[in-house]
Amino acid sequence: MVEDRIIATYLIETAFPLEYAAEVMAGEQSTGTFVSVPGETPELKEKHAARVIEVKELEAVSQPSLPHAKIPKGVHTPVYTRGIVKLSFPLQNIGLSLPNLMTMVAGNLYELNEFSGLRLLDIDLPDSFARKYPGPQFGIEGTRKLAGVYDRPMIGTIVKPSIGLKTDEYGPLVRALAEAGIDFIKDDELCADPPCAPFEQRVKVVMEEINRAADKTGKKVMYAFNITGDIDELKRKHDIVYEAGGTCIMVSINSVGLNAVEYLRRYSQLPIHGHRNQWGALSRYPMLGFGFAAYQKLCRLAGVDHLHTNGLNSKFAESNDSVVQSIKDCLTPLFGGYTVMPVLSSAQWAASAIPTYEAVRSVDVIHLAGGGILAHPDGPNAGVLSMIKGWEAAVKGIPLEQYAKRHPELARAIQKFAN
Amino acid sequence: MVEDRIIATYLIETAFPLEYAAEVMAGEQSTGTFVSVPGETPELKEKHAARVIEVKELEAVSQPSLPHAKIPKGVHTPVYTRGIVKLSFPLQNIGLSLPNLMTMVAGNLYELNEFSGLRLLDIDLPDSFARKYPGPQFGIEGTRKLAGVYDRPMIGTIVKPSIGLKTDEYGPLVRALAEAGIDFIKDDELCADPPCAPFEQRVKVVMEEINRAADKTGKKVMYAFNITGDIDELKRKHDIVYEAGGTCIMVSINSVGLNAVEYLRRYSQLPIHGHRNQWGALSRYPMLGFGFAAYQKLCRLAGVDHLHTNGLNSKFAESNDSVVQSIKDCLTPLFGGYTVMPVLSSAQWAASAIPTYEAVRSVDVIHLAGGGILAHPDGPNAGVLSMIKGWEAAVKGIPLEQYAKRHPELARAIQKFAN
Repeated sequence: MVEDRIIATYLIETAFPLEYAAEVMAGEQSTGTFVSVPGETPELKEKHAARVIEVKELEAVSQPSLPHAKIPKGVHTPVYTRGIVKLSFPLQNIGLSLPNLMTMVAGNLYELNEFSGLRLLDIDLPDSFARKYPGPQFGIEGTRKLAGVYDRPMIGTIVKPSIGLKTDEYGPLVRALAEAGIDFIKDDELCADPPCAPFEQRVKVVMEEINRAADKTGKKVMYAFNITGDIDELKRKHDIVYEAGGTCIMVSINSVGLNAVEYLRRYSQLPIHGHRNQWGALSRYPMLGFGFAAYQKLCRLAGVDHLHTNGLNSKFAESNDSVVQSIKDCLTPLFGGYTVMPVLSSAQWAASAIPTYEAVRSVDVIHLAGGGILAHPDGPNAGVLSMIKGWEAAVKGIPLEQYAKRHPELARAIQKFAN
Repeated sequence: MVEDRIIATYLIETAFPLEYAAEVMAGEQSTGTFVSVPGETPELKEKHAARVIEVKELEAVSQPSLPHAKIPKGVHTPVYTRGIVKLSFPLQNIGLSLPNLMTMVAGNLYELNEFSGLRLLDIDLPDSFARKYPGPQFGIEGTRKLAGVYDRPMIGTIVKPSIGLKTDEYGPLVRALAEAGIDFIKDDELCADPPCAPFEQRVKVVMEEINRAADKTGKKVMYAFNITGDIDELKRKHDIVYEAGGTCIMVSINSVGLNAVEYLRRYSQLPIHGHRNQWGALSRYPMLGFGFAAYQKLCRLAGVDHLHTNGLNSKFAESNDSVVQSIKDCLTPLFGGYTVMPVLSSAQWAASAIPTYEAVRSVDVIHLAGGGILAHPDGPNAGVLSMIKGWEAAVKGIPLEQYAKRHPELARAIQKFAN
């Protein structure tokens, strides 16, 4: 990585020659303009222009993936070529600035009518970004230390129903989960500070139960309290959690914005659990928006310690290949460290461990299950244990059914949840 | 508007019956879960469930607009029906919270695999939101007062080249524009605080010229300084502009996030010029993301005073109908006021006024032109005047060519720019 350049990788689709389209991108996002301007001197271009460093042709299609794309003059039956483009930007155009990085590598590109498809796949940043943005404060190691869980995934669940539980209903629920030996509980993203369970009261009730269980067992369940709110609320709610002995705060990254996450990171004394709701709006159409490789780096710069990735065979509209790649992206060190813990969820149960481990070869995940724990025929205790045993089988390479012979909680889970 | 409900309107596409799909949305974003949970009591549902209040069937298509959409069991040749769905959410699920509003009305919806298309078109909010979020502080009236421009659009331009000018090159440029009688100048979104023209120095040089011109002519050009940066920078740079006598600050809304804009709004003593770069990522695919009607309300809640909309016949990939609707959306009062000034740009010149005024019947816009002003054959002075005369012709309903007979700067603009 050249120390003073930023490399951005795009998937594009265009009716124009790929090389030309790539130059349009580079111009638009640096020194170029629609009309020629006298000030765009050779010296200025040399210092500030973005450079096209790679253009790789992919397949061609006959229908444009996005509307309102222009076709070259004189062309009557356009062909839309897809390709991978890498641009190199001078760091000095933005300095070490996360928001200005976004404007430079994404910005107005999506609206250029030379393109019938444009997606930012990845960004490569000089190490100096890590000096400006300290990134995940706890990461994988710090999270494990706070939760006291090593050498296996952290097993967790989400409080349900998503919204509407009253404050006094949290006590029994959290007690039951803590007694079941769960490692991690999180608020739903839909529950932040509703009048039926005001934030401060909820923290009090939840932490009473967690601290009581910790006194008994020595294990303090990590609870990710959803502090999503306006800027001032973030600090205030962080303090409420911290003072009550809580060990994790959660924010909806796209609802508060990366600036707010980064601001919280500098203040926080707790790991930040990053919920990526609205990610689908940014990513689900393959020829637009952001790839997760780019997105997770932006989130790490902002300082999240945990980041949602979906789980394998989930009920969300994402392929397993994409989920696996997202988990691997999170587990790939950035700036030589800067670790973030992937959070797997949706339709997960004990058997989900096997394909997950086969694909990612790591136990550094937070694995969330709802029904897979709570609906276990022998109760949540057996539910949690079945998840742990599922991962043991996965790591040891023992087929689930075989491992289940010696682990009844696994056998009962298979009986209940396997189709 | 019922005082305690929030209404969200969506465009959807699904292989399932529309009514069923709408119920899935309502469930997912309120009390429902993938697995049934004992706590989801009738009382809780009555208080907290989102309700489907309208389902309107549109056309059907044979190919799904988004990948990984599920089809109903037993169906072999699915038909994907499009429809408009209105959901009503209880305000009490989130309270008066902009970020939690986004999680509720958008959230995980985009990832649900029952949908092959999902776009949030609009949001109707109870007036209580305006009590929590004061919204645009200056709006149209306050901006006009600061700029001293009434009864016609504010005519402006963007400093070009986008990036790379040195501090000492700003002086002559701004002087020429101020002498040309321009109302408004803005930094490019790509230029925030580069080493070649550090923010503080740039403000100094620019405001010296603007203040000098104001002393001479009594007219202070409004310059939107791009303060996009981390949270602490926003305040610091606001102060630099304010103390130098500047009258506008600009932020890249999607780069800093709505929380940061809202935070800035509470602090700011200046109008906030909202640049929407990356908007294309959220909107360009018609079956995903956000409609501008929804987006501009979120931006107004956060408190922007100006908001970019593109201009008619621009070089961006947006239809004129969409641009016109966006301008009208901005000009529609919210909570009985809460005004925001639309900013029109890209390939604009004197003649752009006619179709714009015909479509929107308002002069409450900031109209930005680059070449249309700077490349005028008789210089920027004539360029600015040609824009003003174009709007006069539009408002008076006089054909441009006819009006040009008495206004040479208009005639020369037509000669140069008309194709």
